[in-house]
Amino acid sequence: MIGPDEIADGLSDDVLASVEIMVTAGSTFDPDLVAKLPALKLVACFSTGIEAIDCDLLERRGIQLTTAAGVNAHDVADQAFALMLAQWHSVLQADALVRDGGWQQGFLQGLAPRPSLKGKRAGIVGLGRIGSEVATRAAAHAMDVRWWGPREKPDAPYERVGSLGALAEWADVLFLACAASAQNAGMINRSVLDALGPRGIMINFTRGMLVDESALRSALMSGQLGGAGLDVFLEEPTDAALWKDVPNCVLSPHIAGFTQEAGEDMFGQLRENVRRCISGEELLTPYFT
Amino acid sequence: MIGPDEIADGLSDDVLASVEIMVTAGSTFDPDLVAKLPALKLVACFSTGIEAIDCDLLERRGIQLTTAAGVNAHDVADQAFALMLAQWHSVLQADALVRDGGWQQGFLQGLAPRPSLKGKRAGIVGLGRIGSEVATRAAAHAMDVRWWGPREKPDAPYERVGSLGALAEWADVLFLACAASAQNAGMINRSVLDALGPRGIMINFTRGMLVDESALRSALMSGQLGGAGLDVFLEEPTDAALWKDVPNCVLSPHIAGFTQEAGEDMFGQLRENVRRCISGEELLTPYFT
Repeated sequence: MIGPDEIADGLSDDVLASVEIMVTAGSTFDPDLVAKLPALKLVACFSTGIEAIDCDLLERRGIQLTTAAGVNAHDVADQAFALMLAQWHSVLQADALVRDGGWQQGFLQGLAPRPSLKGKRAGIVGLGRIGSEVATRAAAHAMDVRWWGPREKPDAPYERVGSLGALAEWADVLFLACAASAQNAGMINRSVLDALGPRGIMINFTRGMLVDESALRSALMSGQLGGAGLDVFLEEPTDAALWKDVPNCVLSPHIAGFTQEAGEDMFGQLRENVRRCISGEELLTPYFT
Repeated sequence: MIGPDEIADGLSDDVLASVEIMVTAGSTFDPDLVAKLPALKLVACFSTGIEAIDCDLLERRGIQLTTAAGVNAHDVADQAFALMLAQWHSVLQADALVRDGGWQQGFLQGLAPRPSLKGKRAGIVGLGRIGSEVATRAAAHAMDVRWWGPREKPDAPYERVGSLGALAEWADVLFLACAASAQNAGMINRSVLDALGPRGIMINFTRGMLVDESALRSALMSGQLGGAGLDVFLEEPTDAALWKDVPNCVLSPHIAGFTQEAGEDMFGQLRENVRRCISGEELLTPYFT
C-alpha cells in the first residue's frame, strides 16, 4: 500500500513499476502518474462521478475501472428533492418568519401562496440510475415528467424531449442528473437558463461543472431564473462571498450521496473490487463492459 | 349577505331568522349564534379541517355541512415532505454552513452524514385523502410504509399497525394525517413521543391540537425525540419565544394547503355549494352522506 504522501514525495521507478491497483476519487486523476505505472490493471474509484478520469486512456491501455455507480442513487435523488421542495415551499423563509415573530394573524401569513406542485413539469437531464430515481419521486408528487439525454432509451416510461433547450423551455423544474463528463461541462448555459425562465427552478446535485455558474448567479439576481437548489459547485468548497446577494436559492455542501449507509456501501464495494482484482476474479462493478 | 362585522355588532332577530347559509372556517364555530338561526340549512366551510364545528348539533338539526376536503390533499402532502426532508437532510443547517463560509475542504463538510431514507419507516396516522398522498410520496422515496387509524380499511395497500403507540414505536418518521376532531386532541402525548424516540421525527401539518406541544418541546430539547417538522401549532400564530431554544425542528406558518390553485379550488367549490343550496340542487361536497 502506497499513500498520497508517499506519492507526493516521489517514488522510485521500481516501486512505480510494481503498482497494479490505484484507488482514487473521480474528481482527481493524474495522467502523468498513470503513464509511470506500466503494471496498472485497475483504477478503483470510490465515487460515482468520474469527471477527471480519462476513460479513453484507460481503455487504450486495457486498464479496468470500477466506480460506485448506483450505490447511492436513492440518497442523491432524496437530496435533489430536499433542495427542490425547500425552494418551492420557501422552507427557509417560512422557518425564519415563524422564529422571528413575523407570522401575522390572518390568511396571508407573510408569505405569498406558492403554486401547487401538482401537474407542474419536472424535466430531467439524464435518465440514468439517479435520474430514474428523481423521476419516480417527481411522479409521486403528481408532477408531469419528461427527460432529455443524448441517447434514446426505448424502455423509458417517460417521454424524451428533442433537445436540452426544449426540455428547459417545457419544464418548471429542471433536474441535472447527467454524467459529469468533460463533454457536458458548461452545458447549462445562459440560453438554457433563459429557456427555463422566471418561473422555473434548476436543481443541481451531480457536478458543478455542468453549469455556467456565473450565468446562473446573474439569472437569479435579475429574476430571469425563478430559483435554484445547489448541492454542487464549480469550485468546492464554494466561496461564500459568491452567494452573498444571490436570492431564491438553497445551498448544501455536496452532501447528496453522503449517507451513513452509502459510505459503508461505497467502501465495501471498493474493497470487494480490489479483492477480486487481486485474486483474478470478475470485478463487481466494472465500468467498461 | 351579512359580514363578520355586522354579526359582531349584533343583528335583529328578524335578520337572524332569515339566515339560511353560513360561510365559515372550520376553526371557528359559535353554537350560540347557530342556536339563533332557525332557518339555517347549510354551513359551508372553506377549510378542510372542521375541528371547531359541532357536527352532532348540525346533524340533529338537519343542517348540512360542506367542506374543502380533498381539494388540497396533494399540496398538504407536499408540504409534509418539504418539512420532513428539510429536517432529515439538515437543509437549514447546510444552507447556513455554505453561506457562512463554514464549508471545510474534505469529506466531512462540517455536517455529520445523515442516515439514508431508503428502507426507513414512514408511519402514517390516518390514511384518508391526505394520508394516502403522504404514503405515495414515502413509497417513492423508498420508505417502508405502515399506518394506523381507528377503523380498518380493507382496500388499503399498506399494513395497518394495531395501535398508535405501536406505530410510533415502529416508525422512523411519524406523519400526522388524521382528522382534526375533538376526540383526537392531544393524542400525540409524551408516551407516543417517547415511543418514536431519539432517532424518530414527527411531522404535523394538519392541526396543532393533535399534539401535546409542551411535551413535544421538552422532548426536542432533551433529545428524547430526534426532530420535528411543524406547519401547525396549538395557537396560531405561535409565539416565537416558545421555539427560541428548541433544536432539531423546521417550522412553517400553516401554509401546507395554501397554494394558488387550492385557494381558487376551495372558493370555487364553496361558491358552487352555496349556489346549489340556493337553487335546491344536490350539494357538491356534502359532509353528511
